Amino acid sequence: MESLQTRLHRQLEPTAWPGDGVSVINKLVLALVSLSLLVAIFETEPYIRTAAPDTLLALKAFFAVTFTFEYLMRLWAAGAMPQYAGLRGKWRYFWTPISALDFTAAAFLWLEILSPIHGTLGVLFRLARILRIFSLVRNSKWSRALRLMGSAIKARYIELILSLCLAVIALALSATALYLVEKDIQPDAFGSVPRSMWWAVATLSTVGYGDVYPITALGKVIAGISALTAIAIVGIPAGIMAAAFSDAFQKFRNQDSAAQK
Amino acid sequence: MESLQTRLHRQLEPTAWPGDGVSVINKLVLALVSLSLLVAIFETEPYIRTAAPDTLLALKAFFAVTFTFEYLMRLWAAGAMPQYAGLRGKWRYFWTPISALDFTAAAFLWLEILSPIHGTLGVLFRLARILRIFSLVRNSKWSRALRLMGSAIKARYIELILSLCLAVIALALSATALYLVEKDIQPDAFGSVPRSMWWAVATLSTVGYGDVYPITALGKVIAGISALTAIAIVGIPAGIMAAAFSDAFQKFRNQDSAAQK
Amino acid sequence: MESLQTRLHRQLEPTAWPGDGVSVINKLVLALVSLSLLVAIFETEPYIRTAAPDTLLALKAFFAVTFTFEYLMRLWAAGAMPQYAGLRGKWRYFWTPISALDFTAAAFLWLEILSPIHGTLGVLFRLARILRIFSLVRNSKWSRALRLMGSAIKARYIELILSLCLAVIALALSATALYLVEKDIQPDAFGSVPRSMWWAVATLSTVGYGDVYPITALGKVIAGISALTAIAIVGIPAGIMAAAFSDAFQKFRNQDSAAQK
Amino acid sequence: MESLQTRLHRQLEPTAWPGDGVSVINKLVLALVSLSLLVAIFETEPYIRTAAPDTLLALKAFFAVTFTFEYLMRLWAAGAMPQYAGLRGKWRYFWTPISALDFTAAAFLWLEILSPIHGTLGVLFRLARILRIFSLVRNSKWSRALRLMGSAIKARYIELILSLCLAVIALALSATALYLVEKDIQPDAFGSVPRSMWWAVATLSTVGYGDVYPITALGKVIAGISALTAIAIVGIPAGIMAAAFSDAFQKFRNQDSAAQK
Repeated sequence: MESLQTRLHRQLEPTAWPGDGVSVINKLVLALVSLSLLVAIFETEPYIRTAAPDTLLALKAFFAVTFTFEYLMRLWAAGAMPQYAGLRGKWRYFWTPISALDFTAAAFLWLEILSPIHGTLGVLFRLARILRIFSLVRNSKWSRALRLMGSAIKARYIELILSLCLAVIALALSATALYLVEKDIQPDAFGSVPRSMWWAVATLSTVGYGDVYPITALGKVIAGISALTAIAIVGIPAGIMAAAFSDAFQKFRNQDSAAQK
Repeated sequence: MESLQTRLHRQLEPTAWPGDGVSVINKLVLALVSLSLLVAIFETEPYIRTAAPDTLLALKAFFAVTFTFEYLMRLWAAGAMPQYAGLRGKWRYFWTPISALDFTAAAFLWLEILSPIHGTLGVLFRLARILRIFSLVRNSKWSRALRLMGSAIKARYIELILSLCLAVIALALSATALYLVEKDIQPDAFGSVPRSMWWAVATLSTVGYGDVYPITALGKVIAGISALTAIAIVGIPAGIMAAAFSDAFQKFRNQDSAAQK
Repeated sequence: MESLQTRLHRQLEPTAWPGDGVSVINKLVLALVSLSLLVAIFETEPYIRTAAPDTLLALKAFFAVTFTFEYLMRLWAAGAMPQYAGLRGKWRYFWTPISALDFTAAAFLWLEILSPIHGTLGVLFRLARILRIFSLVRNSKWSRALRLMGSAIKARYIELILSLCLAVIALALSATALYLVEKDIQPDAFGSVPRSMWWAVATLSTVGYGDVYPITALGKVIAGISALTAIAIVGIPAGIMAAAFSDAFQKFRNQDSAAQK
Repeated sequence: MESLQTRLHRQLEPTAWPGDGVSVINKLVLALVSLSLLVAIFETEPYIRTAAPDTLLALKAFFAVTFTFEYLMRLWAAGAMPQYAGLRGKWRYFWTPISALDFTAAAFLWLEILSPIHGTLGVLFRLARILRIFSLVRNSKWSRALRLMGSAIKARYIELILSLCLAVIALALSATALYLVEKDIQPDAFGSVPRSMWWAVATLSTVGYGDVYPITALGKVIAGISALTAIAIVGIPAGIMAAAFSDAFQKFRNQDSAAQK
């Protein structure tokens, strides 16, 4: 009969899971990690921080206890693998990158509760939890699809770089043209090429905030022409990304149907 | 010789219509339902409500009478089907989902006239009439095209979910970056990650209302880079939808030409 | 030896031109028609109208004389075709649609000079000259490419109509959702579904003027979700048009290479 | 044994480089040229010009000395080619377009230091350095990819011109329609067709600055319809460019795999 350790190991370790996809326990962990990310995002809102400080603390305490318990379970279950058996093996497991990530995530949660870190560092610690999501799905079809996408993009790196260069040149030329035409009329918006660049990015990406735009007739003509011609150029990287995506999933489906035979 | 009931049934019941497309009477009903939807939309405008209350009431009375008459016709014509023949059959037909939808639509029209419901509930009742359009075309090529599209989208759900996840991550990272840079300078717009999210959505979808935008140099650089790189990522779901559409219609045309042989 | 009439006819009548493309004289006429359109566009600008009234008048007089002379030449050259020979034939030619278009265009130019019509009617008369461009290229590869495009679009009319319906439904649902959420807070912008529609069109087409946008948290969440999901739907008609264009030109190139063999 | 001149020639002259891509020295030159372009862009910013005039001068002096040295090296190394050997050959090399470009770039750098030219001319001189980048990669796969793209675009010139014409007609009709509707209400924004054109370009390119937009109900309806239908038309040139790009890189990869066999 199988030991509890072996069964837990199979549930917790994505590479040991025999079935397709993600194990039940890891699905739960995935949901909790996503939830804790959501809480971390909403926690930045001052209104929520002052309105419900106790709920936030309770949620964080719950996550801290849960993720600590989860970490200890992972540490123990890792013993099912021969290389991580015994106290020595545990020590070795402790220093693997994924274990270190899990440990740090749990430790930072305790740190947040005991002495709240606000500011850039605290936000980055919280964001690092996104990596945990990737580590949990690393043996499922999602991760395989991601890997195929990565290689599809790599296969097109010359296209991507060249189209990005064209986009940058289009940006630089548009920005320079408007700098030359409107630098004396709107010095705040077009007084230098880097300043014009803000207009150029907003225009060629078609975002168009409307905080800066040409006001002279010549500036409007140049802006109109550069917008219409450059949109085609700036849109090319998006097209390449979409094609890479489409290629990757064609391969993905072919592998799937080959595996089913 | 065929009875009037059988002939009416063939006209009114989309699945009983022998020809291609939609029967003449159902086309008329379709036009009336669309018109009543249009009236419901324009009715929300206070200017129209005060300028022409009588015209609106007359139109609604006309629709109420027409749709009630239509419902009674459908109830009677359903008797042409053996399972809905007789008073018992009528009762059974009355409780079918499509009959219930038709009945509710007609009933709500009378309710609107007798005691006008304004507010959310009334609007939702009126919007529900869109479903009647789908029920009327449910046996035509339009509905077949829609079904093919549905299955083409279902075949790509991994791609769609993965690309949506990438888009959400791009949104979260952009929002967090601008929150970190401008949270003290523009607390109203970037004072928390959820607030920054509004900027991120408006920017990465290239809508760019212009109510919020970075004002510091670093914020503008980050916004520019994140806009240009993320547009490619946010555009991928649109590309997948377009490809699904194209696939579905390729299949649709193949079925059509196979049917014509 | 060929008569002058026959040679002129070959130059003036696009369908009689033996070579590829457009004859030399018709190219000149094309340039003049385009120029007269440009003048008509710039003439609407009050600043130009007051700054250079004499130049405008001179240009219009030049166009009037030229196009009148061109019309007389066409009338005379049409005699080279047996069905338009003789005075009777001229009369018959006079009433052909293309001759009527040419005559009207020239006549309106004289009318503009003698008693200037400003306002909608005058602008529409001037715009009608675009049709002359199409009549001049009607036997060249440009016109063949246009016809192929037309049939490629016609072959996809179900897709186009269905995707337009989806776009309209997405517009209606977004507009209704924001009407329900913000109708009391921003009655000018969202006080009725038709008013919300202006916001919905500006958002889902990603134009985003920024004159109206949600200000409540719930409104922003709904706007963000509806923007991101609906962009994919609104982009589909564009994709279909692009595919139709691509199909038409594939066919065009195949015809070309077949003709060269 | 090979002379230093021959070895230098192989490093400096892109067409003489035996390996794939760009030689080590030319990579360095490429980086320096890009850096000098970046400096030229930031130099237009008055804030930087007043804050760090010495750093800017030092950088420009460094670039001037480096590019002069590079030019002399190229002049000497060109002697390795028989047609440019000897003093006569140098003179001939001096007048080749690429040498002239290099010489002018270096000369202008000295001119900038000795008597700074601000204004349009100075900016154009600095921008001309982009051409040097193209001259340095002219024998690498990047340049081959660019050439393939050029021919892919040329093969589609009818499509591009026709789609641009359609886009221009869509622009003109939208602008005219709004001019007719709002010319009296918003004379500044829609008082003439050329003025309306600014709105039309901003709308149909989906940039939507929001400085001008219709305010009447009829104007909004027309703007909405024209925006939604015209976006599909304006998007076609972008699609053609993306397809040309995709074609060119398909050919590029085929050539690559053929070369590897």
